Amino acid sequence: MIMADKVYIVGVGMTKIGRWYNRSAKDLFYEAMSKAIEDAGGVKPQALVIGNMTSSVLMEQDSLAALLADHSGLRGIPAFKVEAACGSGGAAFYAGYSLVKSGLADIVAVGGVEKLTEGISSETTKALAQAADAEYEVFYGASFTGLNALVARYYMSKYGYTREDMAYWPLRMHEYATSNPYAQLPKKTSLEAIIKSPVVAEPLHLFDCSPIGDGAAAVILVRGEGKAREVSRRIGRDVLVEVRGVALSTDSVDLGSRTDLLTLTSTVDASRQAYRMAGITAKDVDYLEVHDAFHITGYLALEDMGFATKGEAPKLWKEGRFAKGDKPEVNLSGGLKARGHPVGATGIYQIAECVLQLRGEFPGVRASDPTIAVAQNIGGIATYSAITVLGRAR
Amino acid sequence: MIMADKVYIVGVGMTKIGRWYNRSAKDLFYEAMSKAIEDAGGVKPQALVIGNMTSSVLMEQDSLAALLADHSGLRGIPAFKVEAACGSGGAAFYAGYSLVKSGLADIVAVGGVEKLTEGISSETTKALAQAADAEYEVFYGASFTGLNALVARYYMSKYGYTREDMAYWPLRMHEYATSNPYAQLPKKTSLEAIIKSPVVAEPLHLFDCSPIGDGAAAVILVRGEGKAREVSRRIGRDVLVEVRGVALSTDSVDLGSRTDLLTLTSTVDASRQAYRMAGITAKDVDYLEVHDAFHITGYLALEDMGFATKGEAPKLWKEGRFAKGDKPEVNLSGGLKARGHPVGATGIYQIAECVLQLRGEFPGVRASDPTIAVAQNIGGIATYSAITVLGRAR
Repeated sequence: MIMADKVYIVGVGMTKIGRWYNRSAKDLFYEAMSKAIEDAGGVKPQALVIGNMTSSVLMEQDSLAALLADHSGLRGIPAFKVEAACGSGGAAFYAGYSLVKSGLADIVAVGGVEKLTEGISSETTKALAQAADAEYEVFYGASFTGLNALVARYYMSKYGYTREDMAYWPLRMHEYATSNPYAQLPKKTSLEAIIKSPVVAEPLHLFDCSPIGDGAAAVILVRGEGKAREVSRRIGRDVLVEVRGVALSTDSVDLGSRTDLLTLTSTVDASRQAYRMAGITAKDVDYLEVHDAFHITGYLALEDMGFATKGEAPKLWKEGRFAKGDKPEVNLSGGLKARGHPVGATGIYQIAECVLQLRGEFPGVRASDPTIAVAQNIGGIATYSAITVLGRAR
Repeated sequence: MIMADKVYIVGVGMTKIGRWYNRSAKDLFYEAMSKAIEDAGGVKPQALVIGNMTSSVLMEQDSLAALLADHSGLRGIPAFKVEAACGSGGAAFYAGYSLVKSGLADIVAVGGVEKLTEGISSETTKALAQAADAEYEVFYGASFTGLNALVARYYMSKYGYTREDMAYWPLRMHEYATSNPYAQLPKKTSLEAIIKSPVVAEPLHLFDCSPIGDGAAAVILVRGEGKAREVSRRIGRDVLVEVRGVALSTDSVDLGSRTDLLTLTSTVDASRQAYRMAGITAKDVDYLEVHDAFHITGYLALEDMGFATKGEAPKLWKEGRFAKGDKPEVNLSGGLKARGHPVGATGIYQIAECVLQLRGEFPGVRASDPTIAVAQNIGGIATYSAITVLGRAR
């Protein structure tokens, strides 16, 4: 039976993440969008949703979605920008999914782009702090890393972890990233280097944090198995990637009005909803990309998505769980930590990576023949959580 | 037959537009959202889409949608912000429509909010200029009013209109606004006052332009006639308002790469698409709210939506066409000119006004028993056009 209203991802494109001082957001997005269209056998998107956080502040440019549509040869199509802080990409995907699912468009592109090196670095830090509460947090001097440091310190104190215990996250991410051609930091590191790296906000040191970088990624969605199979036939691909579940949840922006600082409540809610929509449980997940903007958010994601009990993720991780060959395999891309974190594009990178892993085409460390892949993208400290469940069909 | 997948607007709420130096965006939005929920008999929205342009620059606050959801008692629900410059409200409605139509949520709130008096006025002018192209226009000194002035001057020169000819637009808008309790400028004016008002960017003088103001508006969408009728019964309302057509189109951001400066191409495209989706033509439109950020954009909208031939709108308008009692009746709210233009909220004000006119409940100048109402909201100089067609059912 041909399913007429299922949604499929038929094309993906990414740029290498880096400090592209000599390239504009338009140029980066054009590269990603062109690659995605080529990957989808040349289909023309009928609508475009853009995930981006900082263009208003760092590029002094609103109207971003129309600008990028025009620059990519798509002038005229419906287009808008979605902002959900660092979760803008995942939220844009959620919005794009609804456009294609609702029938407003049959072929929808969702792109993420971020140009963080547009201003001086103090401006970038200030722009990123807008993920936090301007009145209750930033006004009093909090930086975004500072707030994550509070959570990390509390977690380590409560569960008895040292900085070295936590450092196995960045260690593994750097190792994976060495073979990812899109990664910003394709460099191995050592426990010693991580621990001795300069402090950013105790207990977070430089190598515990994701880097500042520019990048763009795009994916193309179509509605209907017939259309998806038509694309596959045209380009000789035997794998279909279906969007089996999407969910978006929110929490307070300020940490002070939450009841539990060590649970990403929106990730708990959104992952449950997305699993239910997909008809799966955490046990069925073969491959996972989580939002490790800092090691702490990576560990919390594993716990809050049902892969570890609270307080145990760093221990399991250090023992080798979630590595290549385990189930689920996690962040073989190198994660935000080493693949990079071009904020509003990150959620789209994760989804593109999941698609390529399901197809067996990821150009870095390859997952072990996964059937179900999940991406978790958060904004703020899980003020937003966007969960996307993808499934392989043949 | 009960239509299960039609979409209805069951609640609307607005704040009075003004220079609310002593109120925050959160406070304004809370008022609008609470009113909309009350107007919808207390239904609880399951998702929230926010239209806003300038929060990143003037409030230094991203994560706006989650912040507003939380502050309105809706913590946890899916929420994201849509940016499409001055068309953010209309684009947010388009996104919200797709969420409810796709089945991702059954009850969706779409809100618009803008706090333009947050910074000093030079910052506001700079923030609004982000609707234009940062590299090709603003870098060279263009303000957003300056760009509209170029279009107005060309139009007046080509079709032989004087400033007095054009001034009948603001004249009528100010008259209507006197009885709109939500209007920022509920004050009559005169042709002489308009013509003698201080220059902003020739040929646009102060009274030819919409004012700077703060405001918030919200509407609540539900899917299914059954659900809509249930709300109506609960609150004793005998009119259903159905969303019959939505469309969003884009154009280049910079004017320099367009072929025709005097046609809002995205408005032509989006209105055709929305009429087609609704199964109507321009002749069927009883009531119309258009985006008269400047008199010129109001006149162009009438021409490009099929209500006047190119170059004739100001002549027809001066003769009394489009006034109360004509078909269509246009901007009985007072329009952006006098009701006000809280940028990202404007598109939601227009839709809320259309809903109240269809119900016969608008608290200002009331339309003559309309059946079909259309809202046109643009971003930039129609870089974005969002068209919404609403129909009355009993």
